[in-house]
Amino acid sequence: MLLDEALDRIAEVPDFPEPGVLFRDLTPLLADPAAFAATVDALAAGLPEDTGLLAAVEARGFLLAAAIGYSRGIGVVPVRKPGKLPAVADRIEYELEYGSAVLELPAGLVAAGDRVTVVDDVLATGGTAAAAVGLLERAGARVDGVTVVLELAALGGRALLGSRPVRALRVL
Amino acid sequence: MLLDEALDRIAEVPDFPEPGVLFRDLTPLLADPAAFAATVDALAAGLPEDTGLLAAVEARGFLLAAAIGYSRGIGVVPVRKPGKLPAVADRIEYELEYGSAVLELPAGLVAAGDRVTVVDDVLATGGTAAAAVGLLERAGARVDGVTVVLELAALGGRALLGSRPVRALRVL
Repeated sequence: MLLDEALDRIAEVPDFPEPGVLFRDLTPLLADPAAFAATVDALAAGLPEDTGLLAAVEARGFLLAAAIGYSRGIGVVPVRKPGKLPAVADRIEYELEYGSAVLELPAGLVAAGDRVTVVDDVLATGGTAAAAVGLLERAGARVDGVTVVLELAALGGRALLGSRPVRALRVL
Repeated sequence: MLLDEALDRIAEVPDFPEPGVLFRDLTPLLADPAAFAATVDALAAGLPEDTGLLAAVEARGFLLAAAIGYSRGIGVVPVRKPGKLPAVADRIEYELEYGSAVLELPAGLVAAGDRVTVVDDVLATGGTAAAAVGLLERAGARVDGVTVVLELAALGGRALLGSRPVRALRVL
């Protein structure tokens, strides 16, 4: 399947999770084996050659990072919401439009000098991706960039990531 | 890597998430590419030949189901905690030791007659797996069983699943 056809499986849902937000629903893509494979292959092909670890952002990033990691023979470290990890190396609290959120990095899995790519489904305001990058860099890792299926450019997430490369299969 | 060696990467963490519980932490296995590949390959090899869809239980089940689905060329449907899915086909509330939890099935992705395998990391009391099975069967799917890395047999989860097969790489 062509990548464009795969990405066309993504559904748009108005007013979710709150009024005025147009939610991008990747579940139809994930459920279609040809679309899922085409998407994973394209994401994997775009990774820097020497990335040695993927940081999977909870929860939808898990679905993409795990398949990319398997495909490329790279391990996966979940970056999780609070209370999920039994041993936490570090945590970052970051602002959302309403309120705040926390991401945690598991203990003992990311070492100084590791080359890591952050994987999520969508780059929107960039707060979550920037928090994941911050956790990895505070652990001494070199972040090879952020890999996503969709980038919602109007929300300006790239600005929070500085010079770190963003690789998106489709920019909207 | 031998499967036993891969499964030995799983860490045991006492008193998490609450006193008296011995938590099985799969993150060291996921982060080790050889252990992750051996585990995914073994899970994929154990799937019934004609399973056409994997139901991935949020959140750790996402990491395993996505890699298995990619490996086998099968689509993945996330079964999610409440508030995450923009369109819900059905929901089941189930009892936990303290309190209750809810799982939701996304709309439009599981059809009557589909053959689906439920994927999660650990089968413990079985409440979550039984809820996932219930959602699929209420949608008319035929559940080919529950595939997990670890089964904690003393917690009796298998009893909640009736005659549906449980496939575990290791039974503790």
